Amino acid sequence: MSKLLQKLTRLHKSHKDLINIMPLQTGGILSDAAREALIEFGDGYSVCDFCLGSLCNIANPPVRGFVHELLPEFLGCEVATLTYGARDAMFMVMHSLAEPGDSIIVDANRHYTTIVAAERVGLNVFEVPHSDYPEFRIDVNDYVPFIEKHNPKLILLTYPDGNHGNLADATRLGEIAQEYDVPYVLNGAYSVGRMPVKMNDIGADFLVGSGHKSMASAGPCGVLGMKRKWEGAVLRKSKIYSNKEIELLGCTVRGVPLITLMASFPCVKERVNYWDKQVAKAQWFSGELEKLGFKQLGEKPHRHDLLHIETPMFYDISKHVRERGYFLYEELKHRGIWGPQPGITKALKLSSFAADEEQLAFVIDSFKTILSKYSSYKVAQRWGKEQAA
Amino acid sequence: MSKLLQKLTRLHKSHKDLINIMPLQTGGILSDAAREALIEFGDGYSVCDFCLGSLCNIANPPVRGFVHELLPEFLGCEVATLTYGARDAMFMVMHSLAEPGDSIIVDANRHYTTIVAAERVGLNVFEVPHSDYPEFRIDVNDYVPFIEKHNPKLILLTYPDGNHGNLADATRLGEIAQEYDVPYVLNGAYSVGRMPVKMNDIGADFLVGSGHKSMASAGPCGVLGMKRKWEGAVLRKSKIYSNKEIELLGCTVRGVPLITLMASFPCVKERVNYWDKQVAKAQWFSGELEKLGFKQLGEKPHRHDLLHIETPMFYDISKHVRERGYFLYEELKHRGIWGPQPGITKALKLSSFAADEEQLAFVIDSFKTILSKYSSYKVAQRWGKEQAA
Repeated sequence: MSKLLQKLTRLHKSHKDLINIMPLQTGGILSDAAREALIEFGDGYSVCDFCLGSLCNIANPPVRGFVHELLPEFLGCEVATLTYGARDAMFMVMHSLAEPGDSIIVDANRHYTTIVAAERVGLNVFEVPHSDYPEFRIDVNDYVPFIEKHNPKLILLTYPDGNHGNLADATRLGEIAQEYDVPYVLNGAYSVGRMPVKMNDIGADFLVGSGHKSMASAGPCGVLGMKRKWEGAVLRKSKIYSNKEIELLGCTVRGVPLITLMASFPCVKERVNYWDKQVAKAQWFSGELEKLGFKQLGEKPHRHDLLHIETPMFYDISKHVRERGYFLYEELKHRGIWGPQPGITKALKLSSFAADEEQLAFVIDSFKTILSKYSSYKVAQRWGKEQAA
Repeated sequence: MSKLLQKLTRLHKSHKDLINIMPLQTGGILSDAAREALIEFGDGYSVCDFCLGSLCNIANPPVRGFVHELLPEFLGCEVATLTYGARDAMFMVMHSLAEPGDSIIVDANRHYTTIVAAERVGLNVFEVPHSDYPEFRIDVNDYVPFIEKHNPKLILLTYPDGNHGNLADATRLGEIAQEYDVPYVLNGAYSVGRMPVKMNDIGADFLVGSGHKSMASAGPCGVLGMKRKWEGAVLRKSKIYSNKEIELLGCTVRGVPLITLMASFPCVKERVNYWDKQVAKAQWFSGELEKLGFKQLGEKPHRHDLLHIETPMFYDISKHVRERGYFLYEELKHRGIWGPQPGITKALKLSSFAADEEQLAFVIDSFKTILSKYSSYKVAQRWGKEQAA
């Protein structure tokens, strides 16, 4: 057996049971119920025992009730469906509502997949710019001239964006969308499942959510809510197979991620009620980080657990140590903390969502200790180099 | 908490540890290694710890080696990638190679998703007919007049088809494809991972495989192999994000199904070597079923574990019992057998892949017992009804 093949026989995760402050992961940690369901429904196609031809209508396990009752209520929409994730939901909507060569308007803070999905359809994308450093705010009123100029097939807002955790005025954009009668997609990959978001209150036509990003679910998995008026377009059926939605290729998440999404849903539904506590925790964490001399980018006061923190002192250290940028990753791992992307030190993307205050206090203490350790180490190293030269 | 929400807190699979002869499921049962990896990497985005921007290039866990070394060797192709499943791979290829209004040629035994994927792209689909009942064979030479008439952007063969488990002459179609210089897609959802299939030996341009159907993997998950000449078209990169493939929307199986696919791969690679034993087992099972008075549809002698068996005596019973078609499901479940779709009795789709000969002998005995039980029961019931009338 080749060395590579042998590797596959012992796949282990190196970041188990660490304090997790990695933005991509904090909202996707499975609930205990999901972890049990994962084992129970792990085999391929194990959710499809009683499928009568439509994934979203399976009664056992109760996919039908989940998709047609619980999700619409949770998302504040009239019709919901399942997707592989937020990017796939965006593609589905774009592919259904627009033709190659059409235009769409998005915020400049959009996720990269917004662009790639539009490229896959062949659309022209115009971006509403954000404000300058350090806040990078989107003023949704800036959509108006873009709409007037480009006659878009849809507009899209990322809520919040994954870079800075900024929450633009989605409700105001709902009014604008209505005024200009343009379909409005809200990408809630980092909001649906973390904080209360109701599509109808916001006035959006579509609400996109991500199971693995924010709904305590295994990946790939997502949800899409919409107004009933779009059901015929986005969930249009095959001409040959009348119970198969074309944009879902018949069915989407035919496997274990769906079961984890469902099993976690009661917890997820509950946890959004405590969003104010999450925001308070994020603000406190951000404030403590700033006390260390770091600088929080994005909106202030911050209203989301996604934090982008400039850490120039770490970057400075990275230039002087043998491990380069990886020193920070190693130091944190050693302390049981998993978060900043290995190698990155200039500005860190962090999330306070999954860790409690005690754990976050430990993170802050660890940052402090690392800073002080390397400030002397750096001096010693420089001295060493000078001696060697 | 609503009754429905409560249901989600206790999701259990009703068909655990039964003898599994359900065609959708027998090739997707996890290996022990995959079951361990499932738990380890269950959390959303847990495979992406060390992602540097491209899923297929992640070094830890060794996705890169798996996708770029092991898969091409296994599939007999030059370039491989990951997909959500066979349908998604077919859509990717169609969407990359054809424009709305273009034509493609497929076999009449194709899976429904072939049609739905083509509808999503907006293609005209022409079907090479199969032979009459009971064999439903595809003669690949029949592709020739279709190719000459419709100038297709690609041709597709389902190998084997999911209805009858027929294996058409894929290699001969490779010669035809080469002769007419038309891209050739082989849908191996029920072959890749069960039996040896090498794209280059067959002369196909694309080979589609399904993780959850035939590679002992959780769903949704699949693989796509191709000749290098198609890489630029199908795996074309975003103009803005140069490491993101447009058709993958940046990345596909960003979660636990991928880990199960990788963890099972050593077993899967090994098990295809014993395909002749699987074929012998299927032929024996089919023969025993025919001894009961049932009739195997599809090719004879059969060369695949997917079996479509006409069972008119079960259908006859279903017309006379209170449970209607569900009597068979209940009887089998009671005996620890899971396979025929609940309610169906006229013709059963079965797979002998996961069960051993002892288990299959028990299935045959069970069928026999059920037939004899109901033959007297049926008489008694009829008598009862007549008395009541």
